[in-house]
Amino acid sequence: MTETVAVIEGDGVGREVVPVAVDVLDAVGEFSFVHAEAGDAVAERTGDPLPSATYETVADADATLFGAAGETAADVILPLREAVGSFVNVRPARAYPGVDALRPETDVVFLRENTEGVYSGHEDRLSDDLSTLTRVTTTSASERLAEFAVEFAPEGFHIAHKANVMRETDGRFRDAVQRVADAHDVATEEVLMDAFATRLPLDPASFDVVVCPNLAGDVLSDLAAGLVGGLGLLPSANIGPENALFEPVHGTAPDIAGEGIANPAATVLSAAMLLEHLGYDEDGTRVREAVESVLADGPRTPDLGGDASTGGVGDAILGRL
Amino acid sequence: MTETVAVIEGDGVGREVVPVAVDVLDAVGEFSFVHAEAGDAVAERTGDPLPSATYETVADADATLFGAAGETAADVILPLREAVGSFVNVRPARAYPGVDALRPETDVVFLRENTEGVYSGHEDRLSDDLSTLTRVTTTSASERLAEFAVEFAPEGFHIAHKANVMRETDGRFRDAVQRVADAHDVATEEVLMDAFATRLPLDPASFDVVVCPNLAGDVLSDLAAGLVGGLGLLPSANIGPENALFEPVHGTAPDIAGEGIANPAATVLSAAMLLEHLGYDEDGTRVREAVESVLADGPRTPDLGGDASTGGVGDAILGRL
Ligand SMILES: CC(C)[C@H](C(=O)O)[C@@H](O)C(=O)O
Ligand SMILES: CC(C)[C@H](C(=O)O)[C@@H](O)C(=O)O
Repeated sequence: MTETVAVIEGDGVGREVVPVAVDVLDAVGEFSFVHAEAGDAVAERTGDPLPSATYETVADADATLFGAAGETAADVILPLREAVGSFVNVRPARAYPGVDALRPETDVVFLRENTEGVYSGHEDRLSDDLSTLTRVTTTSASERLAEFAVEFAPEGFHIAHKANVMRETDGRFRDAVQRVADAHDVATEEVLMDAFATRLPLDPASFDVVVCPNLAGDVLSDLAAGLVGGLGLLPSANIGPENALFEPVHGTAPDIAGEGIANPAATVLSAAMLLEHLGYDEDGTRVREAVESVLADGPRTPDLGGDASTGGVGDAILGRL
Repeated sequence: MTETVAVIEGDGVGREVVPVAVDVLDAVGEFSFVHAEAGDAVAERTGDPLPSATYETVADADATLFGAAGETAADVILPLREAVGSFVNVRPARAYPGVDALRPETDVVFLRENTEGVYSGHEDRLSDDLSTLTRVTTTSASERLAEFAVEFAPEGFHIAHKANVMRETDGRFRDAVQRVADAHDVATEEVLMDAFATRLPLDPASFDVVVCPNLAGDVLSDLAAGLVGGLGLLPSANIGPENALFEPVHGTAPDIAGEGIANPAATVLSAAMLLEHLGYDEDGTRVREAVESVLADGPRTPDLGGDASTGGVGDAILGRL
């Protein structure tokens, strides 16, 4: 069977790095690619950053590869996560041999709840002075994330939360995750999200897999990105029950967009996660190893101190597959 | 006039480090100290971690020096911040010469909103599956923080927020802070809190003063603590209109509590902030310089690789005043 992969380049460097990742997917497998638009450019033209045709394409595809969107990022990525019913955002953060990192020992995977918390977005303007946001936590979403976590990390994981302040909501989250873990005999350790932010830079090796509510996962995984050398290398997966969406953690990088020097590594690594998700584990591994090999001694884009182009790095990756 | 300083040792190492800071205050000024209880120990004895007498003592004092509380921390510190009507939590994070730090260039002061956000704590259990937390943002609290910020940082500051997701609430916060800054011709720069978490480790020198909502300030300042070598050195001030409360950022450190080896630096630096807040700027500077001098070449507690006791470090600080 030929799987359908929706491809959304989006804005900025998304247009430069996604084609590289598509070439890589094309080189290792047989996919039917469907291109779709989203982001600032299409919003400028049509008034809508996420045309319904794009939403449908993503909802129907077996997997989606997404680049980045500019100002409209939240209007694009949050509905697209919904389009695949994504209940978990998987964000591995690790340092690569040969790449400068503040904390090369970092090797952490964040499993971020991907549907609720402050992201479900019920905000109200109650008066000229006062606005509220209703943060939502359900046992069902927490348990679903936990079911994924126990499969992903049978050797155990941390739960980062702020249940000492958000007792009822983060308390519910923590209790639900712990209950599922206990039922599967998977060990968990709690850590307050503020304490985690202190400890990760001091002792990254003490964390392996970290399960968090939505906003905590956003901020703490971006912190980990800073420890491994920036966002340029971090892939991510938004996993749903039927399909999934893969995206680099970086944004549109307006400062370098259009110059053809963006690092395609994060997007190609996202494509590797896509391959694994579709069951092509060996191909995923091949792609990841090719990227690692190029990062170690191949041509480098300027963010890593080299002077290679996006295409130059892409060719090197293709050459090492 | 002799100002009244309420003193709450609390639990764990609070009992060891607070007396050192009181000795320092006593050495440089004339204060009338009023001792009060809060925390796990008094909760165990009386069922109440924060006796109303303690609350009143703090509300009536000109300033309070607080150590740390254990399991009951949130039940103690959140009402005490309220007791002084604290609208801003000032958290300086800097590296000290002679102290190992991941990022010695770090020198950032966080001005954390101290009354609302997720901390105002309206949580509801709506069903067996669902709980909500109502996050509150007011223009008045945001403006009040901003009035403080423009005085504190006339040369400009960053505003860290997540208004791309929390549009109405963090949007209100950002807009209010910017409006006040604009009216005072103070420059501001926005940064998303997740992007801040990536950038601070990579380039700490690009940040100086950072104004944030309550939980963002909690997490991001704790991240900065990790970059300067841990919580052992970080003081903080909870400033209200009439009085204020000063506390080290660290907790009760149960692993070393009772051994007499806790580092008193953060609490003595908190006492220096107390002195400055009461108008004794020169004394505050003297105390800070004495701590810095001891950190640079004096006796060290084990957290900094030495084998001195809390009292030994305290005596060294007193000796260098
Ligand atoms: C663009 C934004 C809405 C998004 C988020 O907060 O989830 C981004 O920061 C991310 O982490 O993918
Ligand atoms: C103990 C806890 C409630 C508190 C907070 O979240 O404010 C602590 O983390 C702090 O930062 O002082």
